[in-house]
Amino acid sequence: MAKEIKELTSRSENYAQWYQDLVIKADLAENSAVRGCMVIKPYGYAIWEKMQRILDNMFKETGHQNAYFPLLIPKSFLSREAAHVEGFAKECAVVTHYRLKNDPEGKGVVVDSTAKLEEELVIRPTSETIIWHTYRNWIQSYRDLPILINQWANVMRWEMRTRLFLRTAEFLWQEGHTAHATREEAEVETITIHDIYADFAEKYMALPVIKGVKTESERFAGALETYTIETMMQDGKALQAGTSHFLGQNFGKAFDVTFIDKNGNTNYAWATSWGVSTRLIGALIMAHSDDNGLVLPPALAPIQVVIIPIYRSEEQLAQIGKKVAEIVQGLKDLDITVKYDDADNKKPGWKFAEYELKGIPVRLAIGGRDLENNTIEVMRRDKLEKTTISCEGIEEYVKNLLEDIRQNIYQKALENRKSRMVTVETYDEFKEKIEEGCFIMAHWDGTSETESRIKAETKATIRCIPLDGDKTPGKCMVTGRSSVQRVLFAKAY
Amino acid sequence: MAKEIKELTSRSENYAQWYQDLVIKADLAENSAVRGCMVIKPYGYAIWEKMQRILDNMFKETGHQNAYFPLLIPKSFLSREAAHVEGFAKECAVVTHYRLKNDPEGKGVVVDSTAKLEEELVIRPTSETIIWHTYRNWIQSYRDLPILINQWANVMRWEMRTRLFLRTAEFLWQEGHTAHATREEAEVETITIHDIYADFAEKYMALPVIKGVKTESERFAGALETYTIETMMQDGKALQAGTSHFLGQNFGKAFDVTFIDKNGNTNYAWATSWGVSTRLIGALIMAHSDDNGLVLPPALAPIQVVIIPIYRSEEQLAQIGKKVAEIVQGLKDLDITVKYDDADNKKPGWKFAEYELKGIPVRLAIGGRDLENNTIEVMRRDKLEKTTISCEGIEEYVKNLLEDIRQNIYQKALENRKSRMVTVETYDEFKEKIEEGCFIMAHWDGTSETESRIKAETKATIRCIPLDGDKTPGKCMVTGRSSVQRVLFAKAY
Repeated sequence: MAKEIKELTSRSENYAQWYQDLVIKADLAENSAVRGCMVIKPYGYAIWEKMQRILDNMFKETGHQNAYFPLLIPKSFLSREAAHVEGFAKECAVVTHYRLKNDPEGKGVVVDSTAKLEEELVIRPTSETIIWHTYRNWIQSYRDLPILINQWANVMRWEMRTRLFLRTAEFLWQEGHTAHATREEAEVETITIHDIYADFAEKYMALPVIKGVKTESERFAGALETYTIETMMQDGKALQAGTSHFLGQNFGKAFDVTFIDKNGNTNYAWATSWGVSTRLIGALIMAHSDDNGLVLPPALAPIQVVIIPIYRSEEQLAQIGKKVAEIVQGLKDLDITVKYDDADNKKPGWKFAEYELKGIPVRLAIGGRDLENNTIEVMRRDKLEKTTISCEGIEEYVKNLLEDIRQNIYQKALENRKSRMVTVETYDEFKEKIEEGCFIMAHWDGTSETESRIKAETKATIRCIPLDGDKTPGKCMVTGRSSVQRVLFAKAY
Repeated sequence: MAKEIKELTSRSENYAQWYQDLVIKADLAENSAVRGCMVIKPYGYAIWEKMQRILDNMFKETGHQNAYFPLLIPKSFLSREAAHVEGFAKECAVVTHYRLKNDPEGKGVVVDSTAKLEEELVIRPTSETIIWHTYRNWIQSYRDLPILINQWANVMRWEMRTRLFLRTAEFLWQEGHTAHATREEAEVETITIHDIYADFAEKYMALPVIKGVKTESERFAGALETYTIETMMQDGKALQAGTSHFLGQNFGKAFDVTFIDKNGNTNYAWATSWGVSTRLIGALIMAHSDDNGLVLPPALAPIQVVIIPIYRSEEQLAQIGKKVAEIVQGLKDLDITVKYDDADNKKPGWKFAEYELKGIPVRLAIGGRDLENNTIEVMRRDKLEKTTISCEGIEEYVKNLLEDIRQNIYQKALENRKSRMVTVETYDEFKEKIEEGCFIMAHWDGTSETESRIKAETKATIRCIPLDGDKTPGKCMVTGRSSVQRVLFAKAY
């Protein structure tokens, strides 16, 4: 897997190409032989594993358990909920047969036409239908509720235009599916998860979010309310980083999931669903990285610290190795992931560039002079700043530096967002600002018609109706009709 | 999910029914709406998560990394390796279309015939083909080797007769796929993993294994050698619990994966693959459990200790709760997973039966008299033995007890195997013993013809050619021809 370090396309030159180059050159993922499906390489997958571990703990701490439901869904299940089938039918991969056979004419293997399924099965684009069909047998009484289940799984949505991590036909995700006895409880659950997603993005991904709800036309297919966290990439486009849906009784009714409540009455169960996916890796890259390569928030970096020896002789290398062993142990004791790269077939300069490309947050380099002086060179990836400090207390120094890096990249992303966040009053101004790559707060009359028109004319969508901030009413910038509050517009990934 | 605790079918009455009852009643899994695909319920999935965590660490400690490859495989890839396609074509789920549409006649959604794939895709039954197609671009030089990758994934094999955990159309597993520069290195890798599987089974599953290699006809489709760990269930049948395959250069050649070696020569890469699946949960149940329910080895029990209060008043419950809090903390400090069940809507007797069914290794019960005497009642699930001891040092006592339980259930499984392990000289004796449910060591002439005949006549298969033990040559029990060593026969799951 060795390769030369080549120049990345710069962000200013071509942001989309820079992203594509970076995903490939940093060994995160690549396209596969199957249209739209990616191979997630070990380095990319290691980031996903970090995300999984943290999120999984957050879900478990709030009472959720993991389970696993079938990959395949009977075609008829999709039709049970009208909005749901409308949303997903057009991108379903369909299994029609269950056997191959040798071609009698000797042309390899062919589909065995005698092994046709009575009812076609789709590969899950999301699992509400198969799960609510299952819940029907699990729920009889209010004592069986709530059910708080999450699933880590692959899903498939046959997208026509794909992009590594951001939009792929197959992707990995977690999908939570909960059932509740009351509307209020389901609403609280929806918000609890929305808050978890926001915390995860801000604390671990160092990514500031805007919390809000989707408009009716941008809601999940089958939801009454979709809570979203919207993040800004460096080019000013929005990326939806996690959604939590209040599904009301739609799936309870579609799959006839009823229960006897405390008063002996029969009710339909209330539902939520929520998910984040490998798309978050795309968000991570686009939000923080630079023209030298990845910039990873320390909490999600598979390797947090790399140590590189600079030596003239084997003897010197041995001395450095001894010193480094102490430092490695000290860092490990602080739960810091560290790699000592003493491979002798690569020059230090090559290693420096490679680890910059890979976004290792902190690089330590130690040479002969350092040994004499008991010093070490520290480079922080986010600012590409070098400093030489004493080895005394280096472990605590690195620990604090990692936290400082997190804060710095969060702050940088926040400042980018602030600088591109504008309030506009007129549609002309809107059109101008949207082309510059801005998040725009503007008044909208609340109709799908106006929303569609804006999208058709500018490619901007309403990212969310923000939960916090200015709630002053006004006039729609397009129609002049009354608006209850400003909403957030942007072009989106 | 509440349900009454009902009697299980006893093992002696109907072993197969007992297994089926237990999986359902202990809330481990159930059949889904999709033929042959199971729903793994939270309690069953929690066991799988424990297995995953331990195995994943073992793989990483031996230098492996995780990655993710596409779910779908172009049909033509399967044909590249002749034995491989022969082995898997008959059980492939085939994706032929990528869109559904509304039926113009109003009958819900139908497959959109205009969205037909040019080449059909199969849902991976295993991933050698797509992975070796990918490796082709990753491998140019010996410096790119070895590649040591593992994948946690779902796979699909369209089985006609399915059984929860043991044989299902979709199952979860890990599949390792490694590439090496030399035959020797690939062989060492194959054996390293074989040893990891054996260690995992013996140490964590408390399941004694017989290590060996498969005969040619029982090998993985495309392998030159398949290493297996064979385990005995309580009824004397064998269950193959993990296989590690030396694939030679078969996939290197099929996918044209070559590299330049140290001497500048071009060679095909050497391959291994290896996997264990959710089938291990079936093995766990069948090996250790009894007519009262599950018996779980402590290392894989989602809850290791449950504490139940026996009280007459709220005041007494509060006193017990205070005492229990100390014990819970003490157990947690020793990394023991503990649950305090003070739910007031269930009687202690109900709870006792429920936790026996669920196989919690240790149950502690504490009542008013115990409070006075500073004692606690300890019940070990494996022997269903109760004893009352002092609360002083209870944490260490429980810790030792958990290890004792592991050893005891391992020993019990080992004794069952010893009592059913026989050596036979004649085919008549063989037929008699195989009906009794035995592992049989017998001489075989090494031909597939004799192996097939034995299978057809007795349903017994050669589970493995054991690596250890008696290597004395002899005469085949069926044909009288010469045999290099005894091999292991059994009926298998």
